[in-house]
Amino acid sequence: MTHKLANKTILGASIWKFFLLTAALFFLNAMPVYAQEQADPPASDTASEDSAPAEEPPPYKDYDEFAASDGFEIFTINNLWILIAAFLVFTMHLGFATLESGLCQKKNTVNILFKNVFIISIGIMTYAFYGFNAMYPGDMGTDWNGYFAMGSWFGVDNNDVTMVTDAYNPGYTWWTDFLFQAMFAATGATIVSGAVAERVKLGSFMIFATLFVGLAYPTAGSWKWGTGWLDAMGFHDFAGSSIVHAFGGFGALACVLVLGPRKGKYTDNGLKPIPASNFPLATIGVFLLFLGWFGFNGGSVLSADPRGVAFVCVTTALAAASGALASMACSYFACRKPDLSMALNGILAGLVGITAGADSVGILDSIIIGLVAGAIVVYSILFFDKMKIDDPVGAISVHGVCGIWGTLAVGIFNETHSVGTQLIGTLSYSAFAFVFAYVVFSIIKSTIGVRVSEEEEERGLDISEHGQEAYGS
Amino acid sequence: MTHKLANKTILGASIWKFFLLTAALFFLNAMPVYAQEQADPPASDTASEDSAPAEEPPPYKDYDEFAASDGFEIFTINNLWILIAAFLVFTMHLGFATLESGLCQKKNTVNILFKNVFIISIGIMTYAFYGFNAMYPGDMGTDWNGYFAMGSWFGVDNNDVTMVTDAYNPGYTWWTDFLFQAMFAATGATIVSGAVAERVKLGSFMIFATLFVGLAYPTAGSWKWGTGWLDAMGFHDFAGSSIVHAFGGFGALACVLVLGPRKGKYTDNGLKPIPASNFPLATIGVFLLFLGWFGFNGGSVLSADPRGVAFVCVTTALAAASGALASMACSYFACRKPDLSMALNGILAGLVGITAGADSVGILDSIIIGLVAGAIVVYSILFFDKMKIDDPVGAISVHGVCGIWGTLAVGIFNETHSVGTQLIGTLSYSAFAFVFAYVVFSIIKSTIGVRVSEEEEERGLDISEHGQEAYGS
Amino acid sequence: MTHKLANKTILGASIWKFFLLTAALFFLNAMPVYAQEQADPPASDTASEDSAPAEEPPPYKDYDEFAASDGFEIFTINNLWILIAAFLVFTMHLGFATLESGLCQKKNTVNILFKNVFIISIGIMTYAFYGFNAMYPGDMGTDWNGYFAMGSWFGVDNNDVTMVTDAYNPGYTWWTDFLFQAMFAATGATIVSGAVAERVKLGSFMIFATLFVGLAYPTAGSWKWGTGWLDAMGFHDFAGSSIVHAFGGFGALACVLVLGPRKGKYTDNGLKPIPASNFPLATIGVFLLFLGWFGFNGGSVLSADPRGVAFVCVTTALAAASGALASMACSYFACRKPDLSMALNGILAGLVGITAGADSVGILDSIIIGLVAGAIVVYSILFFDKMKIDDPVGAISVHGVCGIWGTLAVGIFNETHSVGTQLIGTLSYSAFAFVFAYVVFSIIKSTIGVRVSEEEEERGLDISEHGQEAYGS
Repeated sequence: MTHKLANKTILGASIWKFFLLTAALFFLNAMPVYAQEQADPPASDTASEDSAPAEEPPPYKDYDEFAASDGFEIFTINNLWILIAAFLVFTMHLGFATLESGLCQKKNTVNILFKNVFIISIGIMTYAFYGFNAMYPGDMGTDWNGYFAMGSWFGVDNNDVTMVTDAYNPGYTWWTDFLFQAMFAATGATIVSGAVAERVKLGSFMIFATLFVGLAYPTAGSWKWGTGWLDAMGFHDFAGSSIVHAFGGFGALACVLVLGPRKGKYTDNGLKPIPASNFPLATIGVFLLFLGWFGFNGGSVLSADPRGVAFVCVTTALAAASGALASMACSYFACRKPDLSMALNGILAGLVGITAGADSVGILDSIIIGLVAGAIVVYSILFFDKMKIDDPVGAISVHGVCGIWGTLAVGIFNETHSVGTQLIGTLSYSAFAFVFAYVVFSIIKSTIGVRVSEEEEERGLDISEHGQEAYGS
Repeated sequence: MTHKLANKTILGASIWKFFLLTAALFFLNAMPVYAQEQADPPASDTASEDSAPAEEPPPYKDYDEFAASDGFEIFTINNLWILIAAFLVFTMHLGFATLESGLCQKKNTVNILFKNVFIISIGIMTYAFYGFNAMYPGDMGTDWNGYFAMGSWFGVDNNDVTMVTDAYNPGYTWWTDFLFQAMFAATGATIVSGAVAERVKLGSFMIFATLFVGLAYPTAGSWKWGTGWLDAMGFHDFAGSSIVHAFGGFGALACVLVLGPRKGKYTDNGLKPIPASNFPLATIGVFLLFLGWFGFNGGSVLSADPRGVAFVCVTTALAAASGALASMACSYFACRKPDLSMALNGILAGLVGITAGADSVGILDSIIIGLVAGAIVVYSILFFDKMKIDDPVGAISVHGVCGIWGTLAVGIFNETHSVGTQLIGTLSYSAFAFVFAYVVFSIIKSTIGVRVSEEEEERGLDISEHGQEAYGS
Repeated sequence: MTHKLANKTILGASIWKFFLLTAALFFLNAMPVYAQEQADPPASDTASEDSAPAEEPPPYKDYDEFAASDGFEIFTINNLWILIAAFLVFTMHLGFATLESGLCQKKNTVNILFKNVFIISIGIMTYAFYGFNAMYPGDMGTDWNGYFAMGSWFGVDNNDVTMVTDAYNPGYTWWTDFLFQAMFAATGATIVSGAVAERVKLGSFMIFATLFVGLAYPTAGSWKWGTGWLDAMGFHDFAGSSIVHAFGGFGALACVLVLGPRKGKYTDNGLKPIPASNFPLATIGVFLLFLGWFGFNGGSVLSADPRGVAFVCVTTALAAASGALASMACSYFACRKPDLSMALNGILAGLVGITAGADSVGILDSIIIGLVAGAIVVYSILFFDKMKIDDPVGAISVHGVCGIWGTLAVGIFNETHSVGTQLIGTLSYSAFAFVFAYVVFSIIKSTIGVRVSEEEEERGLDISEHGQEAYGS
């Protein structure tokens, strides 16, 4: 026991070293740009939308001039919607926290909740210090290589009219853009969180999540949304079936392979199911995710355009509904019972599936996409279980496999997009996330380890990692 | 055991036959219209608002012309609000799911949650394939008989400017209209779900819910909101005290009468209360319903008009608050204790009560309406229990009885509306829902049955219907 | 037992007397103004914004003229945002209900939920009858003493264009203003609710809460937001770090001192921790509070101004995230374990801390404010526990101490505000709330008592006060 505690303290120390180092690096990286911006507001960025030469005068004398201009009303509406969409995507993090803790065992609930609180916090923070500018190098009007850009402190001067008016973007201010995208960024790591639940070492996961959300996501995201090489190829991923979901799902797959299955799940006598501890909690999670997806997809219209947002919300709702119905049917045929966890995963599968094409497939297509996703997720979950790849919440199937399906579906149902390009795009995201996660998680494994001891797993991570129980008297 | 399983499979098969048949019928019904629309966009619908002759040129050359027009800003705001209202009404479905599962016994929780996932999914789907066009025949500019219109596939061409601009409606696009109304549609069946909980056979309920939400609701809804015979009479039901709530509540009453009380509830020695299994869950449900009601009522203004929406939200909040206070007081006098479930039902009673007149009664009136509703619901729940009509969540009282009260209150507090007409309207909805539900549920009873066996009820529907438990280890 | 019941009935009777008397007083106070307003709409209020002489003609002939005017679009957007912000602040009440019931013991859950249902209801109601007009006397264009104004019935004529157009305020109608502020009002009492949980007598708390939210809050609020003496001094409290949170936190401290600690918490052998009963519930609460804070702070911009709202939402999110990270680190150093309840309180601490200056400190400042708040809350909670001041949810530390910190931070990080004035302001709110609560709660203590009996506390308030259990079978 003494040994263990000592050992823990050492591990604890290395984790703290990591976070202090990380914080220091982020600050070192951010501060020069921050100082520069304060001294010299990026007036040249004005030109980013029009590719005009630098040093042009700002489009408005000051913010008041903009507020009195004709475009102010529609900009205000657009910006308001993107902010509300950001709040809805924020709600998805509560959805993930409740879904994951509902589907896992009681004894690991505090651990899962703690991880989710950490991820949204570190996700927002790293996005401010590095990720936002790394992901949208094109927004700054700079030429870049299309594959990798260093990020920096995201702060701009709030009085700089080129950043807080339609000179920056017709749909939102710089700050709104940051908030909406920061909420997306944290999602990738959250997806992994569910798949590695119930046996991952807390500190190791925190390190991994920081790098996954802080470095890997903005880099990969820039390829499409930052006007990088996949964008140049004509790849279409409206709200991130690949960029967010397949990315998270295949990162999760890599981590699960490194980590191994939960103790006692796959025995010589076959699979031993580990049932959900709290279905109401899991259901709350899925409904909140469904709700949040209206912001995830609807906000990705990047304005409040009535035709665009309404259509996207309808395709989103139809795919979710048809996904649920398909999963109910397939799980009934596969397992001879109407399975609630499959029905819930069916909703999510439909939502992940429609995310890439919510703006560009037809209404009937969205139903078909949802039906197929709802079917896929059932058989995919059964398949991974047969392969002894243990994913307690089905995240690899929901986000990874259905993310690929949704991305390909854009090419299938909309002839203006090529299935080939869609395939290249989705495989690029999946492969990059898989390789990044595999390498990083393996390095962590070989240093401080990624898995709690058998006794700790047996006892539950709540007691062994936190000294707390989720459900008291 | 073998016999039972075999039996189940047969029943299962007939349920699947029903759903396959239903799906086929929906498709058959929808496809010709869908094909027609694709071939020949309904340009003549342009005229629906102005009753102008057909074949008039569209009001805008294309969507870009509309986006550049003076009316675009206000249309964008209005449309955004109705979309957000739809999201809020969606949230009510999570509210119902948590309220119902919180008020029922642990052993039936998975079943309740599954039903709620099914209802929102099938509700959206049937509304797309049939309900929306069945409920709003007047919107298509067609003459109709005012009592019954066949519905059809809801899809329109997203480039048809007559459907996605203010030429369709000053407040929203066609798609927004669909989404908002689809969220309403599913509510009726959800209300029934709570009343029949803990002993209804899953498959039978799924069949009933499909017909109730898919056929009965749009038909009855068209009488008022589809410019049918009750609309012509001057009946006023702002957001659906009758059209949604009394409809659901009296459908629930019929089903409960056909179904019978839960085993052991009414014994020779009097009523044996079956306490709630999870009050935090039920409280979450009621707060979410309260929240969602701002969209239910506020969105029924059908625009973001500042005066209208703000006033409606204030009357809504006041009625909910006064409903809670009245229920707290009345349950204290009736039962000598401050009862949480009564307080929660008081909020809902106030909300149901104000729904018909939120736009057209005074501020002080809204408080009185809430107080009366909060009192009614307590005594109504006690009354139905005395009558041995077993409604585990009080849905008949909350939605049925208070729905009637709210509808009548419009006539009482606003002299421009006649109490007589209000009475005719609310009785029409209540009676239609009751008769429809009674007949359909009786037919199902006499064929595949509506009630689980005594052993299954005893064991709980979670195990007997789903093979899952809501709360695991 | 008979004696107890009899006793209870007497106590019950005095509580009912209090509420009947309160209701009567509210009505007596409200009715003359209501009658007056009906007879003579307050046309002179038109001038409130421009300090023009009374009896000026209304700015618009009627509402239709306003709806056709140039300013209608932006007013509609602004008003919509403030309404949505009100819904978000409403959601915080569900957040408080779940947070408090999650952090307390199972056996007191129904009691906590009941209190929260009561507070939102009585808060809205007293604000309508008295509080709104007591808090914003300046809005009515009247001269007032800057310290105390009598309130009255809030109702205005919905056809009075001076109240439902930009003649009232450029950002919202009178009704919107009421709803948004009513949601704030109830927050103060909710904060107290958590601190006194698990041993307070229900009726006594209900009386206290009514007076605290109905009288004390609007009076103190008027000092700043009603253009009172603190506003005249240049005190800055953007969304209420002091006005709402320190007010609630120090009211809570007074009540806890009067009430004493929970039985068995502080023993001769040291502190005996009483662990949380439901961490998922508590986590839901904190995420909902985080979500609601976007409305609390974002809505306090009092318009949908894109630059203002976006910036405020970003500072809010950054402070919450950095607060969580700081609390995680500090609780790890202080307790050698990653404590979930501290992480959750860290989010809230960051949010409370940024509330006073969300509009007026820099982006990096907001992170520092959050970090400091997250650190403060950990040591403050440990400090109060050492002082044997028993606050089951940490409300005094989160809202009281961090409220003071946030208010002072405005002076520290923004040179246009004086630290001295900020100190005077925050101490005024804290001291007033403390004294008011101490006096009122002591009077209640000496009459009907404030604390349940030892047996009742042991058994739990759910059974002893409500005869209900939160978690059934």
